[in-house]
Amino acid sequence: MQATSRRCRWASIPGPNMREAASMYGTAVAIFLVILVAALQGSVPPESPFPYHIPLDPEGTLELSWNVSYVQEDVHFQLLVRGLKAGVLFGMSDRGELENADLVVLWTDGGRSYFADAWSDQKGRVHLDNHQDYQLLQAQGTPDGLVLLFKRPFATCDPKDYLIEDGTVHLVYGILEEPFQSLEAINISSLHTGLQRVQLLKPEVPTPAVPADTRTMEIRAPDVLIPSEETTYWCYITELPQGFPRHHIVMYEPIVTEGNEALVHHMEVFQCTATFESFPHFSGPCDSKMKPQRLSYCRHVLAAWALGAKAFYYPEEAGLAFGGPGSSRYLRLEVHYHNPLKIPGRRDSSGIRLYYTATLRRFDAGIMELGLVYTPVMAIPPQETAFVLTGYCTDKCTQLALPSSGVHIFASQLHTHLTGRKVVTVLVRDGRETEIVNRDNHYSPHFQEIRMLKKVVSVHQGDVLITSCTYNTEDRKLATVGGFGILEEMCVNYVHYYPQTQLELCKSAVDPGFLQKYFHLVNRFNSEDVCTCPQATVPQQFASVPWNSFSRDVLRALYAFAPISMHCNRSSAVRFQGEWDLQPLPKIVSTLEEPTPHCPTRGTQSPAGPTVVNMAVAKLER
Amino acid sequence: MQATSRRCRWASIPGPNMREAASMYGTAVAIFLVILVAALQGSVPPESPFPYHIPLDPEGTLELSWNVSYVQEDVHFQLLVRGLKAGVLFGMSDRGELENADLVVLWTDGGRSYFADAWSDQKGRVHLDNHQDYQLLQAQGTPDGLVLLFKRPFATCDPKDYLIEDGTVHLVYGILEEPFQSLEAINISSLHTGLQRVQLLKPEVPTPAVPADTRTMEIRAPDVLIPSEETTYWCYITELPQGFPRHHIVMYEPIVTEGNEALVHHMEVFQCTATFESFPHFSGPCDSKMKPQRLSYCRHVLAAWALGAKAFYYPEEAGLAFGGPGSSRYLRLEVHYHNPLKIPGRRDSSGIRLYYTATLRRFDAGIMELGLVYTPVMAIPPQETAFVLTGYCTDKCTQLALPSSGVHIFASQLHTHLTGRKVVTVLVRDGRETEIVNRDNHYSPHFQEIRMLKKVVSVHQGDVLITSCTYNTEDRKLATVGGFGILEEMCVNYVHYYPQTQLELCKSAVDPGFLQKYFHLVNRFNSEDVCTCPQATVPQQFASVPWNSFSRDVLRALYAFAPISMHCNRSSAVRFQGEWDLQPLPKIVSTLEEPTPHCPTRGTQSPAGPTVVNMAVAKLER
Repeated sequence: MQATSRRCRWASIPGPNMREAASMYGTAVAIFLVILVAALQGSVPPESPFPYHIPLDPEGTLELSWNVSYVQEDVHFQLLVRGLKAGVLFGMSDRGELENADLVVLWTDGGRSYFADAWSDQKGRVHLDNHQDYQLLQAQGTPDGLVLLFKRPFATCDPKDYLIEDGTVHLVYGILEEPFQSLEAINISSLHTGLQRVQLLKPEVPTPAVPADTRTMEIRAPDVLIPSEETTYWCYITELPQGFPRHHIVMYEPIVTEGNEALVHHMEVFQCTATFESFPHFSGPCDSKMKPQRLSYCRHVLAAWALGAKAFYYPEEAGLAFGGPGSSRYLRLEVHYHNPLKIPGRRDSSGIRLYYTATLRRFDAGIMELGLVYTPVMAIPPQETAFVLTGYCTDKCTQLALPSSGVHIFASQLHTHLTGRKVVTVLVRDGRETEIVNRDNHYSPHFQEIRMLKKVVSVHQGDVLITSCTYNTEDRKLATVGGFGILEEMCVNYVHYYPQTQLELCKSAVDPGFLQKYFHLVNRFNSEDVCTCPQATVPQQFASVPWNSFSRDVLRALYAFAPISMHCNRSSAVRFQGEWDLQPLPKIVSTLEEPTPHCPTRGTQSPAGPTVVNMAVAKLER
Repeated sequence: MQATSRRCRWASIPGPNMREAASMYGTAVAIFLVILVAALQGSVPPESPFPYHIPLDPEGTLELSWNVSYVQEDVHFQLLVRGLKAGVLFGMSDRGELENADLVVLWTDGGRSYFADAWSDQKGRVHLDNHQDYQLLQAQGTPDGLVLLFKRPFATCDPKDYLIEDGTVHLVYGILEEPFQSLEAINISSLHTGLQRVQLLKPEVPTPAVPADTRTMEIRAPDVLIPSEETTYWCYITELPQGFPRHHIVMYEPIVTEGNEALVHHMEVFQCTATFESFPHFSGPCDSKMKPQRLSYCRHVLAAWALGAKAFYYPEEAGLAFGGPGSSRYLRLEVHYHNPLKIPGRRDSSGIRLYYTATLRRFDAGIMELGLVYTPVMAIPPQETAFVLTGYCTDKCTQLALPSSGVHIFASQLHTHLTGRKVVTVLVRDGRETEIVNRDNHYSPHFQEIRMLKKVVSVHQGDVLITSCTYNTEDRKLATVGGFGILEEMCVNYVHYYPQTQLELCKSAVDPGFLQKYFHLVNRFNSEDVCTCPQATVPQQFASVPWNSFSRDVLRALYAFAPISMHCNRSSAVRFQGEWDLQPLPKIVSTLEEPTPHCPTRGTQSPAGPTVVNMAVAKLER
């Protein structure tokens, strides 16, 4: 702002003078605002304190605490504003942009101060909302700063409002340094703004107590020199002590080397197969030619963490078994380093800290991968805003691989690479969609938490699990194919469940023969050249498709129709016995209805316009 | 209800006695309700009377009058209930069904009476709406019956409410014969119910005065014996008097023979070409082998009427020219008889009454057909709930055929056959959708009015007009192809405009060669047999397509991609000179945004629950 003032100083007389006056006045107003004292309006804030909190900006100016009432279907927010100047802007938007955002604004025109529900249009202009659905409950000056307490229903049925759903919410903020004559005068592009991702609607699952005999073990990369490559999967083999008996992991948490927070994309700890007595030690890129072949037998997931996740607790009745007879002592740590700026010379010792107990819990827990096989046959055309790919876990696989009592999914981690925008897994029983296992309509590849489910989902033999990912490839020039690279795509839901079964992977991909039919068809229709010669790889073929509405629509039609190849795999990367190629797509006879949002009756509590924050008498007027 | 009582009489003791008591009580309540006197609540009703009214049921029990405020964006309804018994139910739904309807209900529990905003679910169960968006203004007993006055905003943003839009609205009603203990207890299936179609949001276009020298002429079928066939297009040739000079038609109205209202589907008056001195007289089915070849030169539309339409007025500055030198004296009346029950022996003299003046107005008006050519290459797969077909009037055609000053569309008549559900025409200028010419999201083939536009739409040289029709073929077993038959489909917007041009038809269809590529492709992909042999007709080919998600999706993709064949035709069924085959689809770079409904701020006026209609003191309580 200073720079702007300086630039304008000599441009015209009234401009800078008014600016200076406004700036001084703004400071005075800020002081007034800070000495605001409590004033209650509307309903009483909930008795419990705010269990969740997060800093909004890297400087720690804004701190958000919140609480969720699933009975009232609303969220109480407590926003602490340190060093308040002329106001603050806070809200939510689809993907963290300041345009098309649902906002609350506290601002001053230099005289009075106001609090209002507002929204920004696609050009970032701020407008007063016709419906004031954010309700200010309290504004209080504290030694730390101004504390604003307000609430909002999950759904308001106001088309200008954000619908608070399960999954990721992109919070946005902006800091007002100067008074604005009106809400409409606020120029968002001139503010200090930012975003923070958070799961607002945390499930009401109590954190289970950790047993008294819990011990810890750190599985960490051995001072790795992070390659100056965009994508590196680092493989490191370590081993449990000789004679390490069977334990249950009851919790684990990430250890990320300070300074490398942005480089460590995800980490997994795998146990090797017990088929081999021993495994060679190794520390290097997983795709290195030096990597011993045998390491591909280390694929049983023990722990998985990704960017944004916190400590993970198993339910009280289950733990993840490791150690003891019949299981290998060898562990493989895989760290996915994402180094797009190709920073050289960075050393890393990140890893995972396991909390385990010798007092075995009732059930062994397991992790199962649902979604798509990592194969280029599943591809997204370029320039798509919302292309959906779907992976299936078929009735045939669950019939064969699940116990007759079924399994219980208690947590889920959604995973895609950079173009992923939404992920959902639906449970289908007898052809009917019956339940959402996990859904994130605002999924971000930069915020891949393992999330406890609100409600445990039981999967029976013969059930189908369908995982769909929505991608945005607007900034891509070529098709994005499935694969391991960060510029390739994945569609995975790692579900955490008990009791553990042999089924580690239940994923699918389109039949490669039908994909070849597709390339032939596009060739014939467009009279253009997709190389369908035998030596062309699938990525090469996708790279040569002429992308027009027909080739896009027909690819979509192919994926919705062609038979699939199933990966119904045991822990050892071996398929269960059976015919898994050319499987029919599961038939869905009824889909889950989108729940109609429950719109709260607007009573007399909601003001029609901004709430005046009267500083002189330190009260909120209606 | 009596029959039910009688049947139940001996079934159990309490049942029938309670029923009888309830029934007697109901009668008493009804008398009370009738003597309700006026009570005002909320805002004052508008000063103007209600300009629009319509009987809801065939018996004339319910009569609806209404008024539209485009400033307030609300509709004031006045519902007259003759011979009120225990209440009435009125509302709106997508296509006139009583399920998923947005309702107001006046009911009594035997003691008090209530008025409430309600909705019915997909099983027809009635629920109180969380938001009371229908606001009762007055309830008054009159000598004719009970008069209820209430209002509703166009849009409420309540997901349980119907959005009142331009175009057809399906009104529904039900008559309550007995008291119900609660709203939820109302069993819709036991009520006398029905539907009425109406354009609620009438444009505020004043009816132009008819000139003093206006005369009338009736063009009527000559006592036709309606064939006992489902579909008959009857052709009748008549002629203007010798030396009939040039006139302007300023208005016309239908004449439908009493008793044949359900059989006469639509009627058009065409003028023959002036190329031939005379035309043979004829009265018979248009597809008769006896019909003289020459009659296919009688295709210049003078007037068009279809089921549900009323009198049609030209704007004050324009009239439709007929008579005088250079125009043929011969007229062809075409009557489409729709006789699905194949009733024999019905005689008909329906036709159109033209009102014309010798005092020519400033502009000649014309009618232009937009949409799809009547050809089987445009087809809808069976079992589709919302399949869209689109017809184009390209920039090349408007560039060639429109005057440099452009033309002005003032009215529009949308036309499909039985499976049509929505129709829209959009104006595209420089690749950008700029305006809706006409749209009906609840279009019914049984209600094809010619509608004056709210706002005259000007079309320039080089503009594109895109007409899309949405079809529902859930009850069809085979593909529905384009064509003239009532079981075939059309997608037409007859636009009425001035000044008249030579362009009478601006329609398209997919290129037939690309359609053959589609049949080949489906064959190769499914390894099934669509006859692509040269002797197979397109309807035969469509009839043999194996309809699965792939063949459906790819047909959709074909229509969205393949080049088109344009009919850019003069009045004489002759194309304008130029290359009209294998034309590219118009490119659209930006589409019109769906307007966000303007949700009214709910003030303190809206009650939270039902309004009690207190009969004792004849007042509406809050």
